[in-house]
Amino acid sequence: MKSTLLSRQDLDFLLFDWLRVDELTGRDRFSEHSRETFSDTLDLCEQLATRYFAPHNKKSDAHEPTFDGTKVTIIGEVKEALAACAEAELIGMAMDYSLGGAQLPATVAQAGFAWLFAANVSTAGYPMLTMANANLLAKFGSEEQVTAFVKPMLAGRFFGTMCLSETQAGSSLADITTRAEPRADGTFRLFGSKMWISGGEHDLTDNIVHLVLAKIPGGPAGTKGISLFIVPKYLVNTDGTLGERNDVVLAGLNHKMGYRGITNTVLNFGEGGHRPGGEPGAVGYLVGDEHRGLTYMFHMMNEARLGVGMGAIALGYTGYLKSLDYARSRPQGRPATTKDPAMPQVPIIEHADVRRMLLAQKSYVEGALALALYCARVVDIAHTAESAEELDHATALLDILTPIAKSWPSQWCLAANDLAIQVHGGYGYTREYDVEQHYRDNRLNPIHEGTHGIQSLDLLGRKVVQRDGASLAALHRTMTESTAAAHGAGGELADMATQLDTVIQRLVSVTAGMFAAGDIDAALANSAVYLEAFGHVVIAWIWLEQLLAAQGRTGDFFDGKRQAARYFFRYELPKTGPQLDLLESLDRTTLEMRPEWF
Amino acid sequence: MKSTLLSRQDLDFLLFDWLRVDELTGRDRFSEHSRETFSDTLDLCEQLATRYFAPHNKKSDAHEPTFDGTKVTIIGEVKEALAACAEAELIGMAMDYSLGGAQLPATVAQAGFAWLFAANVSTAGYPMLTMANANLLAKFGSEEQVTAFVKPMLAGRFFGTMCLSETQAGSSLADITTRAEPRADGTFRLFGSKMWISGGEHDLTDNIVHLVLAKIPGGPAGTKGISLFIVPKYLVNTDGTLGERNDVVLAGLNHKMGYRGITNTVLNFGEGGHRPGGEPGAVGYLVGDEHRGLTYMFHMMNEARLGVGMGAIALGYTGYLKSLDYARSRPQGRPATTKDPAMPQVPIIEHADVRRMLLAQKSYVEGALALALYCARVVDIAHTAESAEELDHATALLDILTPIAKSWPSQWCLAANDLAIQVHGGYGYTREYDVEQHYRDNRLNPIHEGTHGIQSLDLLGRKVVQRDGASLAALHRTMTESTAAAHGAGGELADMATQLDTVIQRLVSVTAGMFAAGDIDAALANSAVYLEAFGHVVIAWIWLEQLLAAQGRTGDFFDGKRQAARYFFRYELPKTGPQLDLLESLDRTTLEMRPEWF
Repeated sequence: MKSTLLSRQDLDFLLFDWLRVDELTGRDRFSEHSRETFSDTLDLCEQLATRYFAPHNKKSDAHEPTFDGTKVTIIGEVKEALAACAEAELIGMAMDYSLGGAQLPATVAQAGFAWLFAANVSTAGYPMLTMANANLLAKFGSEEQVTAFVKPMLAGRFFGTMCLSETQAGSSLADITTRAEPRADGTFRLFGSKMWISGGEHDLTDNIVHLVLAKIPGGPAGTKGISLFIVPKYLVNTDGTLGERNDVVLAGLNHKMGYRGITNTVLNFGEGGHRPGGEPGAVGYLVGDEHRGLTYMFHMMNEARLGVGMGAIALGYTGYLKSLDYARSRPQGRPATTKDPAMPQVPIIEHADVRRMLLAQKSYVEGALALALYCARVVDIAHTAESAEELDHATALLDILTPIAKSWPSQWCLAANDLAIQVHGGYGYTREYDVEQHYRDNRLNPIHEGTHGIQSLDLLGRKVVQRDGASLAALHRTMTESTAAAHGAGGELADMATQLDTVIQRLVSVTAGMFAAGDIDAALANSAVYLEAFGHVVIAWIWLEQLLAAQGRTGDFFDGKRQAARYFFRYELPKTGPQLDLLESLDRTTLEMRPEWF
Repeated sequence: MKSTLLSRQDLDFLLFDWLRVDELTGRDRFSEHSRETFSDTLDLCEQLATRYFAPHNKKSDAHEPTFDGTKVTIIGEVKEALAACAEAELIGMAMDYSLGGAQLPATVAQAGFAWLFAANVSTAGYPMLTMANANLLAKFGSEEQVTAFVKPMLAGRFFGTMCLSETQAGSSLADITTRAEPRADGTFRLFGSKMWISGGEHDLTDNIVHLVLAKIPGGPAGTKGISLFIVPKYLVNTDGTLGERNDVVLAGLNHKMGYRGITNTVLNFGEGGHRPGGEPGAVGYLVGDEHRGLTYMFHMMNEARLGVGMGAIALGYTGYLKSLDYARSRPQGRPATTKDPAMPQVPIIEHADVRRMLLAQKSYVEGALALALYCARVVDIAHTAESAEELDHATALLDILTPIAKSWPSQWCLAANDLAIQVHGGYGYTREYDVEQHYRDNRLNPIHEGTHGIQSLDLLGRKVVQRDGASLAALHRTMTESTAAAHGAGGELADMATQLDTVIQRLVSVTAGMFAAGDIDAALANSAVYLEAFGHVVIAWIWLEQLLAAQGRTGDFFDGKRQAARYFFRYELPKTGPQLDLLESLDRTTLEMRPEWF
């Protein structure tokens, strides 16, 4: 029986037929790997997801973590699943052998992790954050910090968090007020409060490693005065054993629409509930240099953004597969042209409008998954670049694709979940079926790790213009290589390439025009529309790439790929027309709207 | 302090300045009314909504009705609110004086009821269904039925339901199997099970009046063999007192994503738990003639569809007002061109992208509210038509606008709630704020009383083509009268009229082209896209109508109306371009997709 979490056939096609991930084993870093170890990883992740993560997805939604003022209680299945995850050494999948990792390509690790997201995005959040935390520390932490914190995280004994936002400073990190006071021994004492901290408190592991942004008094104002600290829940002795309780305490849990299985917390630092060493303040250890905290955090943040995108995709994908199963098995109504009530009812997949809803989902989730894996592969290339040019090109692509890989799935795989509910009709709206939870869970993704608005400003106000447009040029070159190949293939592929070329060309020229006027306010006013148009162009290109890989292949799977690509080119890509018109006009409607007119 | 449920200023503008509802008092039916009684009704509804409905909205979501196998328990505030509603004689607002009603225009009644929907859509569901039920029986029931059931419903002593769907027959009523066996005394005995029955069981009132579709054995197959029955929970004695318990029992509650405050039930008829008169079967009374049940039910259904649209609008509207309040009071970040961290943060309404999200909401919810009230006014005209032509025109407009008035708000006021969450950022995703509940509640609306797919087939496969396209022609004429007036006004209004004329013309010619090919499958394959394009054209027209009414008026309110209209014409109406292209091409992508390719 086929899984309703993800399609292994699709993953194999994307990883091996299209992205040729096995070729990565030609690089030193991955030389001990093979297609077999990659496949084994995918098998393992699917098994863990199916056996440990999926079964408690509904239960952890219905029984969210509770806090009695002293202790957080989480249903036991979460701990079991995470123990299985640790046992399987998943957290270190992509990390260095020297740290205890398996040094798998990010592409394979991401594909593997997608199974866990599809099965239970909340429970998978704990290891996901831990991986991002460990990656950051492995890169910027000291040797002592790596020993004390990274290795236990890889072993699954500690989990990690990222503590950025504060109540008065959500998207505006310049305004954080948590302060870190230096002590003579080189440590710091932190005082302040952090908001929206996922996994901020629990007893799933022996310890929790918080990575906290704070300001050292006397530093520069705004984001330039932000430093990064490790603040463990329990101090760690030099022999690795746990020491005193640190002064970071749970102030309360946030109660969310979805993503209910993972604690989301308000944390107080240095409020005085504990006094490690008899002194006030939460003990913190500076990571790297003072005032460079945001730079380090963005290393983690970019990875987290790709992770958010993958979470959105996994939720979209499993919702698609479940609605597909439903549509195949649910009899209802008859074809529009044969209404004879004496005939038996047909499965709803026979209705054109249901097929439209399924095709739309397929085009969204498979397109988004392909983009996410493409980006992961670029991460691998950047990580193992064999020349300055290769590194440069990979970095440029990643820079410009990250806001898309975060926001596009957050929007369109949520739209897929909406369609999955609709395919189920009234049943889809009930908690007896799975899809309403996917929809609720997925609604977080356009918000956390940088809202849509933030992503759109990152794309248009930063990535597109940076280094004289070099990132956009790199993507343009890459997309044009694909359309050239499609032109070479002729037939339908060439027609699609012609359609895409026109839109790409228009996107590039509209972009140039937006900045040519020199009116930054007007250029940025419709950044959200730009993000959407840009995203659709990217996904159309990714679909063309899939078709190139499917060229000459026969069978239902490949026919399905071709039809989903057609759907995207016929129903979706044309939506960019009016969007680009609006952008080209430098429309000032929102700028001219006055607050008092609402 | 302004209400965050609805805008009374907007309602007054729409009802009195635009729709000139006070002119209805020139018609016999409404001659005892005045602008003052209309205003009093709106005041009363706002007060009831604010005092009794809004305060328990979150509580009834968090504490949904429970069923212990014997008894349904609902939080006490629901009963209190509904008692206040009955006390105020709201249920009979629009019904005849002779039945105990207040004979208000539907336009005023709908506007009044919108306050209750905005405050608590679940609790308001009970009287809404009761009104629809009472209306149907008042029209098609016998005098005895009216006395026994309608009058107690108007008094709030009985509530009503509509029982159509069955587990195996959701959207396909031809396939219902509930049967009604005739008895010698003219009554019937019903056997079967009904699904998705809102308000199907509770102890909020003395009795529940179920309107049940069932088949009389030996009748025609399919929908032509469906009859309509009254099946009360308790039989009613000739003196109006309650008699025996009827054999309709609760089999279970459905647990939904939203709309949690109202019971949604599976009901079993004639299972044998009770035996009224010692005989098996639930006692039912035929309404009107045998086999005409669906015709009668569609009278109720059309009204219910307009009601669903209004519910969606009210949820969208209150979410908009709450996100507007939040955006005005929440400081975060600084303008893109002044990033100095020493400057204080600005309210987020200062950010262009937040204004975009607010303007989009405003254009959706105010446009949809205007459409809903327009339709209600057409109901009033139809109800009091002074000539055959007037009745004909009103009926044609109502026929073609009903699927739009149901589906457009269900889609776009849900989109408004999505934006309301986004404006709130992380807070909007928590249950501490209101908007996530509105989003969950609103997600039901594209499903119940006929899904989007059903509405789209109703529009394209029935309403557009009926009577040789007379309904479409009537709407076309009406819209053209508006654009002619806008051309006459000149300036910006004339420009908008030109834009709209072009799209209307294209919609009409594309519609003709779709059927000209004679390929019904292809014509109907993209009915959902047609519904969307059609809806946007209608709402653009409604915005132009509002601008005509606002002509020459000054002040923030009117400037806001103009800016929201501009937003709709610049950001929304152009979306119809690619949709009409697709429809014109008679695209067969979904038809050609084979089930096995998924």
